[in-house]
Amino acid sequence: MRVKNNEYDVIIIGGGPGGYTAALTIKRIHKDRRVLLIRESEKAIIPCAIPYLPATLGSCEKDVLSDEPLIKSNVDIVIDKVVDVDRKEKVVITANGRRFKYVKLILATGSKPFIPPGLEGVNLKGVYEIAKDVEHLNELLRAIRGSRRVVILGGGYTGVELATDLISLGKEVVIVDMLSQCLRVSLDDEFAREVTQELERKGVRVILGKRVKAIYGGERAEGVELEDGERISGDLVILAMGTKPNVDLAREIGLKIGEHGGILVDEYMRTSDPDIYAIGDCAEKRSFLTGRHKLLCLASIAAYEARIVALNLFGIRTHKAISGHIGVSITKVGDRVFAVSGITEDEAKREGIDVICGKFETLNRHPSGLPGATKVKLKLIFSKSDMRLIGAEASGGNEIAELINLLSFAIQKKATVSELIMLQYGTQPLLTSSPIAYPIVSAALDAYMKFEKAHR
Amino acid sequence: MRVKNNEYDVIIIGGGPGGYTAALTIKRIHKDRRVLLIRESEKAIIPCAIPYLPATLGSCEKDVLSDEPLIKSNVDIVIDKVVDVDRKEKVVITANGRRFKYVKLILATGSKPFIPPGLEGVNLKGVYEIAKDVEHLNELLRAIRGSRRVVILGGGYTGVELATDLISLGKEVVIVDMLSQCLRVSLDDEFAREVTQELERKGVRVILGKRVKAIYGGERAEGVELEDGERISGDLVILAMGTKPNVDLAREIGLKIGEHGGILVDEYMRTSDPDIYAIGDCAEKRSFLTGRHKLLCLASIAAYEARIVALNLFGIRTHKAISGHIGVSITKVGDRVFAVSGITEDEAKREGIDVICGKFETLNRHPSGLPGATKVKLKLIFSKSDMRLIGAEASGGNEIAELINLLSFAIQKKATVSELIMLQYGTQPLLTSSPIAYPIVSAALDAYMKFEKAHR
Repeated sequence: MRVKNNEYDVIIIGGGPGGYTAALTIKRIHKDRRVLLIRESEKAIIPCAIPYLPATLGSCEKDVLSDEPLIKSNVDIVIDKVVDVDRKEKVVITANGRRFKYVKLILATGSKPFIPPGLEGVNLKGVYEIAKDVEHLNELLRAIRGSRRVVILGGGYTGVELATDLISLGKEVVIVDMLSQCLRVSLDDEFAREVTQELERKGVRVILGKRVKAIYGGERAEGVELEDGERISGDLVILAMGTKPNVDLAREIGLKIGEHGGILVDEYMRTSDPDIYAIGDCAEKRSFLTGRHKLLCLASIAAYEARIVALNLFGIRTHKAISGHIGVSITKVGDRVFAVSGITEDEAKREGIDVICGKFETLNRHPSGLPGATKVKLKLIFSKSDMRLIGAEASGGNEIAELINLLSFAIQKKATVSELIMLQYGTQPLLTSSPIAYPIVSAALDAYMKFEKAHR
Repeated sequence: MRVKNNEYDVIIIGGGPGGYTAALTIKRIHKDRRVLLIRESEKAIIPCAIPYLPATLGSCEKDVLSDEPLIKSNVDIVIDKVVDVDRKEKVVITANGRRFKYVKLILATGSKPFIPPGLEGVNLKGVYEIAKDVEHLNELLRAIRGSRRVVILGGGYTGVELATDLISLGKEVVIVDMLSQCLRVSLDDEFAREVTQELERKGVRVILGKRVKAIYGGERAEGVELEDGERISGDLVILAMGTKPNVDLAREIGLKIGEHGGILVDEYMRTSDPDIYAIGDCAEKRSFLTGRHKLLCLASIAAYEARIVALNLFGIRTHKAISGHIGVSITKVGDRVFAVSGITEDEAKREGIDVICGKFETLNRHPSGLPGATKVKLKLIFSKSDMRLIGAEASGGNEIAELINLLSFAIQKKATVSELIMLQYGTQPLLTSSPIAYPIVSAALDAYMKFEKAHR
């Protein structure tokens, strides 16, 4: 906490991936600007790795976002809660009564766990949400250690990753989700189905297509009751039902809020106040395809937006604006990796977009006897009208993570099916699919054949 | 061998990745065309995995390219050697006197080991080249089993991969290369140096900057003598000094040969005879950047060219031509993966291209305590005149393989530094670098800052 005086060129509220990346990148681009980062927790946590705290990491200490790079870059850090912003005077006011003057203010206030209104029993002992707070998480870890059977409400990314980690600790784990498959919001059925299967193969009990009516118990939670009356016992209930933007401060100081509850921003992440920016989970996004507003809570997007702000904060650099969010989600469930970028086939249908999908399955090694060989499944979603890539889904080994990033870039560059057939890729026996069956090229060729057939 | 009669729409000579992919893709696009594949060996081997035969795979049987997909696709296969082609009559003539008529002929005759002319002792017992032939490789495997100390001449991809595999068998391994580092032809010094270090860390003795004068011994090889007189003993000497295009047949039948000794082809892989195509190692390539001719022996390129031929064989599809070869090489040395695409900094200098390089180092997991965490090092090479990506080099964990493919696509799409800063990527703790430090974006930002500084 090396606050020289209380006047800053930039004040960032929030120390998660968005705020952290903003601070570092601003100092990298504008060495002499004075930057202050204000956050509420003594230590910042790496949010994406929270599901790996119980078994793989073992403690919160191992999931801390180090302040060292910030300090080395001469970013000042204040641990406090911002309670108000005087937009006229351009002053930030904290709970401890401190006042800091800014030229530019960046809100990176993140998101909060979403808990369905009216869900009974959420306040019982042994019921935990997943908040990005060290103290809260330490308490959750203690509860996990003392538990035998954990019921996770929600089969989204956090739920399925946490389930994978808990099962490796030898816990009994149950996931309850109201949709037909885990991760069904993000993935088309054939991939989401695989997620559920992999969880079950690992020993997780997965209850699908059912809403939870209540969490029941005495003082402590003893399980959950489903809408059909079935009771699922458990000595620990974890709520992993998604998040909502944390816009309390933004709302209080009169910034415009979007239709999905995030802070409204333009393509340079400016809010309705031109000197205040918002990035990450708290800011509303726009679809790359339809331009329509949506929410996307991903650390990669928060960091991306942080860089956009850093580049445009003191003078707009055109061509460094966000014309639309593509979104890339990657997860590992059991031994398999699942990834998606852009639009799924289902989503395209909902948007009224005619698509042609290219599909391909192969192995991720060649020959198949090499260590780590496993099935790779890829689906490319092309807009039928111009055969440009608008979405991709994949499952396979660890290599899927960067494979989907390639496809995200292809979506961003509006790549055509021909360009993907012509992709100049490399292969290596221990690391990739065979050159004969490189999945992107092969799936693109599949789509191309369907397209030609449709036009014959 | 289901030859119905001796007339074919397409005859392919050579059963490696190029010929194999051509056969499969042609049948996929043109179901009713009759396709014959003629190859010399009873079984086709997967060439890229040859270095993994001694330890990781254990036998040639595990490295066979299965005929099943070909047979399922109704490709006819003939095991024979083509000795002549009557281009006027469009007839292929084999060593066994068989004659097959073609409409289109594809040469996929591959490459042969390069042995420096005048190298003494290459015919001693215990000296092996690496030919893509099961019988030869079985003999080599037997020799390896009986050996104690193996001297590999050549620190290229085959040499370093083979050394990695042999050291895991407990053999003493020596690599001799005349350049300053292993893989120095492909990589800039800072990456090639890392390759050498990793080999040495694994216990390989690496002798650099020295030419081999002779292989010495009585009936059997006993070692190699360097140009300075030093003798390196070994009971097995393996020649891994590169390859040269196999153009014997092409030359004999009067096709034009390029300045680098490969068969001359146009952008649709047509040779100087419009009904004869050449693909893979036997065909000459053109640089994507300079258009100048070169050779590139990579299975991924052979498969790529095979698809181009398949798409254009019976009617040109414009926009499916090869405007230039980028080339992607990926290898694993010890525990580290090295990859390169496009032009290195050294190569750019030789070509007279002013470049700005963006560099970045980080970890491939976040937080660092997660299993498999290792250093990632990335270098992006931009042409200074327009700040478009022309090359990339990386080292790190297994994820580097698909990361370099992303960058290859970026080179292909002539991506600018701004586009790479704006790349919409995804991250996952167990699988990728942190969103705060995604290597491509961070290295691009480094280059951008240098560019802005240069123009201030």
